[in-house]
Amino acid sequence: MSELRKDPVVNRWVITLDDKSFVPQPEYKIPGNMPERDEVCPFCEGNEDKTGKNILTINGADGRWKVRVIPNNNPYLKVETELSRKGVGMFDVVSGTGANEVIIETPRHNADFDRMETEDIFGVITAYKERMLDLQKDTRLEYTLIFRNRGIKAGAAVFHPHSQLIGLPVVPMRINEELESAKQYFEYKKRCVYCDIIENELTMGSRIIRQTENFILLTPFASRTCFEMWILPKKHMAHFPKIEEKEARDLAGLLKDAVARLNKALGNPSYNYMIHTAPVKAGDLDHFHWHIELLPRVKSQTGFEWGTGFYINPTLPEDVAVFLRNL
Amino acid sequence: MSELRKDPVVNRWVITLDDKSFVPQPEYKIPGNMPERDEVCPFCEGNEDKTGKNILTINGADGRWKVRVIPNNNPYLKVETELSRKGVGMFDVVSGTGANEVIIETPRHNADFDRMETEDIFGVITAYKERMLDLQKDTRLEYTLIFRNRGIKAGAAVFHPHSQLIGLPVVPMRINEELESAKQYFEYKKRCVYCDIIENELTMGSRIIRQTENFILLTPFASRTCFEMWILPKKHMAHFPKIEEKEARDLAGLLKDAVARLNKALGNPSYNYMIHTAPVKAGDLDHFHWHIELLPRVKSQTGFEWGTGFYINPTLPEDVAVFLRNL
Repeated sequence: MSELRKDPVVNRWVITLDDKSFVPQPEYKIPGNMPERDEVCPFCEGNEDKTGKNILTINGADGRWKVRVIPNNNPYLKVETELSRKGVGMFDVVSGTGANEVIIETPRHNADFDRMETEDIFGVITAYKERMLDLQKDTRLEYTLIFRNRGIKAGAAVFHPHSQLIGLPVVPMRINEELESAKQYFEYKKRCVYCDIIENELTMGSRIIRQTENFILLTPFASRTCFEMWILPKKHMAHFPKIEEKEARDLAGLLKDAVARLNKALGNPSYNYMIHTAPVKAGDLDHFHWHIELLPRVKSQTGFEWGTGFYINPTLPEDVAVFLRNL
Repeated sequence: MSELRKDPVVNRWVITLDDKSFVPQPEYKIPGNMPERDEVCPFCEGNEDKTGKNILTINGADGRWKVRVIPNNNPYLKVETELSRKGVGMFDVVSGTGANEVIIETPRHNADFDRMETEDIFGVITAYKERMLDLQKDTRLEYTLIFRNRGIKAGAAVFHPHSQLIGLPVVPMRINEELESAKQYFEYKKRCVYCDIIENELTMGSRIIRQTENFILLTPFASRTCFEMWILPKKHMAHFPKIEEKEARDLAGLLKDAVARLNKALGNPSYNYMIHTAPVKAGDLDHFHWHIELLPRVKSQTGFEWGTGFYINPTLPEDVAVFLRNL
């Protein structure tokens, strides 16, 4: 029996089918013989001359790098471009001003979070934070987004584990929708909608996969795709870069665990995750709460989904939560 | 040099890269030996017993069917389900009430619009119209959507040419966004934004591919993907099902032409199209204008696109228009 579920924040509906026979089709598997170092990979240790200069490096105790941040050599947007906004006929154009950096998460070509130490993932999170804080000094930028593409279906052009940071001269539509809806909710109830989601989920329990001291990992009520997961900080915080060291270490462990469960459940599927955080200039919003959305790419979107903004999810988030919890 | 382009209606931004070296990767090619009739295809002539009963049939002069409409045997939504709306904790759920029909567009397994007669495509459009008008009698439905998935990358489960019609108990988010923005534009300017787009595009000329008596075919200013095309009626009309016979015949010819150009340009790529029309109960809106959006699926979406609602388009719509115009 299908039902329509509304996302509790934005006006997004998911048709949940509860199809017990559905088999996800993850396109991407890690080949068994993938080496720890690939001669031609620009992100591998020893090939540092194949990329632009390091913007940030985090070294290990042995003096070798653990994380390095470089400029994207094929950037969508460039910091050097002067910001301009103009009209062309009735249309609006903004210059491609912005930043586009790549966070190389490990020297090891064949790693993923499930095969990295928590301390190494803590280094990745630290790099996210430091680069965001640095970019936010550029007053032309309205938003900084961290996202991770893993696997071809998720749009990753390079296999070697990496994330990207993009600084944008406008606030993205999806974030604006969340901000607007969360603000309306706050005006009406004087409470943060995400804080309410956390409380609701902890009370109901059926979609919680795991919780740590500072975070919860769950399958969202209106999951857009099977095995979608969100990580939310229990404490109200609008801006991801305000994360403290202790929290970042806790988050590293939970990210490792989430990816391990996903990889075990689906055999290394393609996936994306994005950090949703408040706009750079927004201040400490009472109504917005940063979080991470992790989306496995196990199903093609049809014209129905493109045309409507609806999603079709063949599986119940409650069933997925049970499955992931018990892994 | 990249630039950010805003869609003239909704708050959607596209980063246009103007990458002259970009090669689209259409996953789907029609195998050379694809037969006109496939023994096991449920949509082929002679296999009518493999599907549910015909809801509508359009026959040719020879008495054989040209178009038939059947219930989707694996529907997202069912007309038989009683409509209910409830809260679960803080969450909202609507029963999976609705309709999901399949329009089989031709008896020929290996056809597409470019290899069909205009008169046959006119039959498809007539089926769209008649089925929408019939479903709109069900007062529980707020929206009826026609969409077409072609190729695996576009989410088509069956190769045989077909479209789908879905009737929904809520108005989809994407349509609501268009309606809201178009309404704001109208309140400010007392003109339909789509009528203004048509006038702007005809004046500028650079994105027009072709025009007929009643329609224009163009690459939209903020194309989300390379080779995106829109068809708009020149006359202001909010509701697609109010299309007249003469207009439907004109549209059939233009659809055939658009698909032929696309197939020739990219070698039969996967694509979707959707008819954007006003909600069932909306009346003759001054501010909304039905249109068709055709999106080739030639590039994976990354986490950046999922997370932001931004799109990355490697090619300039003006270059694509020149290319398609000259085919």
